[in-house]
Amino acid sequence: MSELKNDRFLRALLREPVDTTPIWIMRQAGRYLPEYRATRAKAGSFMDLCENPELACEVTLQPLERFDLDAAILFSDILTIPDAMGLGLYFAEGEGPRFKQTISSQSDIEKLGVPDPEQELAYVMDAVRTIRRELHGRVPLIGFSGSPWTLATYMVEGGSSKDFGKVKGMLYDAPQALHLLLEKLADSVTSYLNAQINAGAQAVMIFDTWGGALSPQAYREFSLAYMQRIVEGLQREADGRKIPVTLFTKGGGQWLDVMAETGCDALGVDWTTNLDDARERVADKVALQGNMDPCVLYASPEVVRKEAKKVIDAYGEGPGHVFNLGHGIHQHIDPDRVKVLVDAVHEFGKK
Amino acid sequence: MSELKNDRFLRALLREPVDTTPIWIMRQAGRYLPEYRATRAKAGSFMDLCENPELACEVTLQPLERFDLDAAILFSDILTIPDAMGLGLYFAEGEGPRFKQTISSQSDIEKLGVPDPEQELAYVMDAVRTIRRELHGRVPLIGFSGSPWTLATYMVEGGSSKDFGKVKGMLYDAPQALHLLLEKLADSVTSYLNAQINAGAQAVMIFDTWGGALSPQAYREFSLAYMQRIVEGLQREADGRKIPVTLFTKGGGQWLDVMAETGCDALGVDWTTNLDDARERVADKVALQGNMDPCVLYASPEVVRKEAKKVIDAYGEGPGHVFNLGHGIHQHIDPDRVKVLVDAVHEFGKK
Repeated sequence: MSELKNDRFLRALLREPVDTTPIWIMRQAGRYLPEYRATRAKAGSFMDLCENPELACEVTLQPLERFDLDAAILFSDILTIPDAMGLGLYFAEGEGPRFKQTISSQSDIEKLGVPDPEQELAYVMDAVRTIRRELHGRVPLIGFSGSPWTLATYMVEGGSSKDFGKVKGMLYDAPQALHLLLEKLADSVTSYLNAQINAGAQAVMIFDTWGGALSPQAYREFSLAYMQRIVEGLQREADGRKIPVTLFTKGGGQWLDVMAETGCDALGVDWTTNLDDARERVADKVALQGNMDPCVLYASPEVVRKEAKKVIDAYGEGPGHVFNLGHGIHQHIDPDRVKVLVDAVHEFGKK
Repeated sequence: MSELKNDRFLRALLREPVDTTPIWIMRQAGRYLPEYRATRAKAGSFMDLCENPELACEVTLQPLERFDLDAAILFSDILTIPDAMGLGLYFAEGEGPRFKQTISSQSDIEKLGVPDPEQELAYVMDAVRTIRRELHGRVPLIGFSGSPWTLATYMVEGGSSKDFGKVKGMLYDAPQALHLLLEKLADSVTSYLNAQINAGAQAVMIFDTWGGALSPQAYREFSLAYMQRIVEGLQREADGRKIPVTLFTKGGGQWLDVMAETGCDALGVDWTTNLDDARERVADKVALQGNMDPCVLYASPEVVRKEAKKVIDAYGEGPGHVFNLGHGIHQHIDPDRVKVLVDAVHEFGKK
């Protein structure tokens, strides 16, 4: 393996000193880039792209060619695990992810197996190995997974949901069934992320996209508890380096304090919580990643720079900040604005 | 006007003692009721129903026939004001609200007038008068409006939005234009709510459905400041009784403390914040309304009762709690569950 040339991202996640604030962007390899759209057209469907390690590597590296980013993130989908469990993931145009089969009962859940990542998810591990090799140590590679609760919402609802009526119906009416599903998912995510680490991922992140739809009690019992189980089961070192683990619950600003108790290294923060406030609440136990409103990138370069500085200033002195948006970049953003942002973060983040 | 026979709802909003916890339900007159669907079919479109005072009165009263609710709420839409400004509100089947014209520039905003509620919105005032008469003092009538920020999102986006790219583009890039729009909307909402009060509304509520999509700073500057202006401009007494004002920002759990400083009487709370925590943060300055997860109503009667008790226990001793869901009731809920809930709240809420 090539030696890592830029480790500012890993150092910041471990709250070690850095020369300037590192930045990466959620969905940095995505539809806002014309070169991504070209590769995607060549691949066929979105899943065809995810399942082709060479093309997944190609799109993973594209944003690094344009911008001075401090990390690469595996190009994949959060729903690969339920797909590997046999639910049949597909993307209907303009509709988001859908499953051919859904989970609606205890007996459906009992039939589910825990996928072997080197078998059913071999295409992901091949992508990790390919990307890691092609990065030549330029920046670290982030591996990721959806959280058990987030995966469960899609598996029970059959796709995206506004109200989560089915999965919450199960939560309130058949909590034991939901717990069984979440246990299987936590085991699956643990072995999936460990396999990514073995294949070369240098940091991992768990995306809890829908944890914010829960009540505080339900969040702890049905989302956070299973993320904690995963954190406890992860291999935290590879090649003599620590593997930082980041948890991100969108809309989870009120729960940062309990999230910081899970043993993770960093928390993602969306833009509805100020970083100074977030930092106070986690009492510097973990690093923070975030949190500019993705919509700032619709504004002029001057406003982008000003808002980037605000985020850096809100975090304040001392180590432990990774700059990011508070959610994924939108598809209609002008790539030139991203360059303005990345350069501004490195300029204003200088120590 | 008939004397008010049940004033538990008004008393609770003013933090006065009550015999038991009052309850009403957001969207209590709605699609989950077969009698509502029958009236709606008779009316034609959703807007035809809103614009027909007799039919709007009919659906407003329907849930009171089934359930022992402590308040009625005007049947109307939050987008009547932009419609009265000439934007042409319509509801495309399965798509939510849309406007024929949208607002995209300072000059679009300069052309907008402040509607006269007794002219362009006369159908709403007629509905208020009709409902108030037909209630015969059974329970108080709630009037309402969307918040300026929430109305602005629909006016600039042209309908519902996932990302708010256009209106936030304006927020970050042309804040003066957005402020002008919000000023006009605040003036419009103030006169609209005052007209509802003059027509017979005994409490008013401002729905800030999309305030939770903002950063803390942007929330204060672009949503809360204009709700405060409205609160300051409202007529707070009618027929010798105080008119309580409730603000509800969905997803605004982190900002309850600043919301409580606006001079309102009560805050709506969604289910992502516990009421004990919310109460501590507002330091008993205001009453609290909420906050059961609407999805609990998918569960068994036993679970509905148990979860209702949890909400009442979380609020704790002393006056100032109005029970409600944390958001509108879903259309697929069994009305029998609502009866279980309403009766449970009155049983467990006994002082």
